[in-house]
Amino acid sequence: MGRGIAARLSAAGVPTLLGSRQLERAVAALARIGSSFRGLQAVSNSDVVDRCDLVFLAVPFASVADVLQTYRGRLRPGTVLVDVTVPLRFEQGMARFEPPPEGSAAEHIRAHLPTEIGLAATFKTLPAPLLGRAAEPLDCDEFICGDSPESTARARAALDRIATLRMVDVGGLEAACALEHMTALAITVNKRHKVRAARFRVVGL
Amino acid sequence: MGRGIAARLSAAGVPTLLGSRQLERAVAALARIGSSFRGLQAVSNSDVVDRCDLVFLAVPFASVADVLQTYRGRLRPGTVLVDVTVPLRFEQGMARFEPPPEGSAAEHIRAHLPTEIGLAATFKTLPAPLLGRAAEPLDCDEFICGDSPESTARARAALDRIATLRMVDVGGLEAACALEHMTALAITVNKRHKVRAARFRVVGL
Repeated sequence: MGRGIAARLSAAGVPTLLGSRQLERAVAALARIGSSFRGLQAVSNSDVVDRCDLVFLAVPFASVADVLQTYRGRLRPGTVLVDVTVPLRFEQGMARFEPPPEGSAAEHIRAHLPTEIGLAATFKTLPAPLLGRAAEPLDCDEFICGDSPESTARARAALDRIATLRMVDVGGLEAACALEHMTALAITVNKRHKVRAARFRVVGL
Repeated sequence: MGRGIAARLSAAGVPTLLGSRQLERAVAALARIGSSFRGLQAVSNSDVVDRCDLVFLAVPFASVADVLQTYRGRLRPGTVLVDVTVPLRFEQGMARFEPPPEGSAAEHIRAHLPTEIGLAATFKTLPAPLLGRAAEPLDCDEFICGDSPESTARARAALDRIATLRMVDVGGLEAACALEHMTALAITVNKRHKVRAARFRVVGL
């Protein structure tokens, strides 16, 4: 997801830092993106939190607690964090959403973030491999919710620049639970129907 | 929902009984459908359970317990019940899905049905008003899951005949929770974006 987001944003002209705990891993991830985008740079996570005011949290949900523990105190006040995580359990090849006690990954993360950091949740239903092929149109919708209209707007300022994607605002973080269920549903559709990039469009909007 | 389902099915050539507790209410509902479809008849619920082997449970979720209590013992063995209910709570004009202890309306209903009755769950994300305007194309997808592939197939045998709708099989009833969340999400999209018939399509399938 991290590579895909970095590829799409930089392809859309948004200056982007691709971070990892170790700089070498970020450099390797950048190499895997394949194309070279102007304004896309590999850095350490420390650089990301020092230099960015919009930060995508693209780690497995199981690593969220660790990553937040390490970096949350170092995010610049006013930063908006964008959660793209989904706690999934795989059972007989099928994905199930395993909600944390707060109801969703987004609400869990909100509960563990300092108040001066905003939170948006999105990119829950976009297939990572498709996201990574930045030359291929996404041709779908993606839902976004946030802890305030401002957090959502800050995330959208970047994401709306991805030309083949329509962002659909669904309000507060209480919507995240539905979006995280839809991740599992999209994976189920992929597996059952032997496709690779099932995603959603809202008809009638 | 009941009127819409009856209208769409009979428009598609499926012989359909539109039932209500009282025959007069079924007759009134039939009159509200507006068009006359060959093979669509208003009857009492007792007639429905006596004569049908595919029965749509289109009542508010709050009435499900009562309706099941009254009719479940009278369904013909081998009948497939199709659950289209969603437990919603409205809060400041927004819809929230309120899952029953079993996780979804569908799983709740399954837990209260005799074993010789099959259960499918679908039509959770189709807007009732649009469904009722049977001449208007639906132009979207609808998800279906069931307690067995047979139950799903039995429901699809009727629903696949609705020409402007693509049914997407998402497996067992454990998928129903996602679908019921999506009902609330579609209503949220309607309210926030001032549209009336937000619904879903799967891209990449």
